[in-house]
Amino acid sequence: MNAIRKSRQPTSADARVVPMSSVPMHTQIREIIRRRVLDGTYPPHSQMPSESQMMEAFSVSRITIRQAMGDLQKEGLIFKVAGKGSFVAKPKAFQNLSRLQGFGEAMGPSGYETFSQVLSTRRVSASEIVARRLQVGLGEPVYEIQRLRYLNREPISVDQSYFPLALGERLVQEDLATRDIFVILENDFGKHLTHADVQIEAISADAFLARQLRIEEASPLLRIERLTYADEHPIDFEFLYYRGDAFQYRLRIDRT
Amino acid sequence: MNAIRKSRQPTSADARVVPMSSVPMHTQIREIIRRRVLDGTYPPHSQMPSESQMMEAFSVSRITIRQAMGDLQKEGLIFKVAGKGSFVAKPKAFQNLSRLQGFGEAMGPSGYETFSQVLSTRRVSASEIVARRLQVGLGEPVYEIQRLRYLNREPISVDQSYFPLALGERLVQEDLATRDIFVILENDFGKHLTHADVQIEAISADAFLARQLRIEEASPLLRIERLTYADEHPIDFEFLYYRGDAFQYRLRIDRT
Repeated sequence: MNAIRKSRQPTSADARVVPMSSVPMHTQIREIIRRRVLDGTYPPHSQMPSESQMMEAFSVSRITIRQAMGDLQKEGLIFKVAGKGSFVAKPKAFQNLSRLQGFGEAMGPSGYETFSQVLSTRRVSASEIVARRLQVGLGEPVYEIQRLRYLNREPISVDQSYFPLALGERLVQEDLATRDIFVILENDFGKHLTHADVQIEAISADAFLARQLRIEEASPLLRIERLTYADEHPIDFEFLYYRGDAFQYRLRIDRT
Repeated sequence: MNAIRKSRQPTSADARVVPMSSVPMHTQIREIIRRRVLDGTYPPHSQMPSESQMMEAFSVSRITIRQAMGDLQKEGLIFKVAGKGSFVAKPKAFQNLSRLQGFGEAMGPSGYETFSQVLSTRRVSASEIVARRLQVGLGEPVYEIQRLRYLNREPISVDQSYFPLALGERLVQEDLATRDIFVILENDFGKHLTHADVQIEAISADAFLARQLRIEEASPLLRIERLTYADEHPIDFEFLYYRGDAFQYRLRIDRT
């Protein structure tokens, strides 16, 4: 509240960001708000001032505030919660997709602390998609491991992993809380992981995923289907659900 | 309606999918519904029967129906619209991410028809992120091209692209409706595209994107930031917003 009240008269530092003369009002306001997010005036997860408060503070119309906030929402810098207002997004953690890595392997070297909470481990009958991917018969028993993955002590993804039965039964005897499954498969079981086929899409969180990830139902999630091969045999089929507000993938793609 | 009424007694064909004996009820129902989606009994974009109708048809509790439907929602086979119920998702189109390609280049060979509607072309002052990515001064003029991209005559993405000023002013004189910008840059302008740095995340549609893409506000979108280089110079910085219900990326990732 204090911060937005002070901004009623943009300071000379604000004015320097975008010259007042040629730049549309909503762009100027967007850049002022952006700087306040980036410099911590509005800290991660804090609630933004309301539209009315901003209209008063900047002396502009609601549509101008909506345009500025809409731009920042599209960039992922802020997010809306229905009926509650706008909130500041956290800086997103990212995983490089150029090389097949487990989450712990990928994030550890960047100084992140990772941890897995095992939600469930059980035999299940292979559904149509699991059977097709793991090349087993429909309804045949496979092993399902469900984990909630944490990044710096906050939940970031739900991983549902399916394995051929014997492999899964060995896996659950290992330390799944602190070790990546890829690393166990390679180092302890001598599997030679070669590659994975990956599909990436965006979905809304259902009640279960929202509860686990501590987000609102219908929040956007990155949904990954990943089928990992050892020596050209599929051995690990997974659905990964990452919080949209906290995570991104990055990769470099070559033209030729 | 008719289809669900007939399913009150699962037929022997249904029963064959998952043996009745060992498989939890919600899993059996999920697989029955899945087959009806995949075989077209519930066609793309049609509204699913309500929870109450399904409870009656399958003679099971609401929680069982919710579990079955929740699984299918997580898979992206169906999607919920707040206050309206569940709908069948269309089979998702996918683009292979292994090689840097424009949308038309990538989708054309799979038999898709692509088309771009140019929403706006204009000079704008470079915002902080655009300036940093295109390596121009903050507030310097750059060129913005906004396109709505169609796949088989349905809107699938909004692309906001930024170019160095002179390049953008040349581009808008070309046929942006039917040609990919990458192709124009290479074939007409002699640019040697080398690679792109890509970020992939999930966000909620704001009012503008929802209207353009003809989806509900707050629907999940794949958001891509892509910076494309010609001979190691950044020349094309883009925000791409793909409908989560209609599109996915695919790629193969190698372990080493």
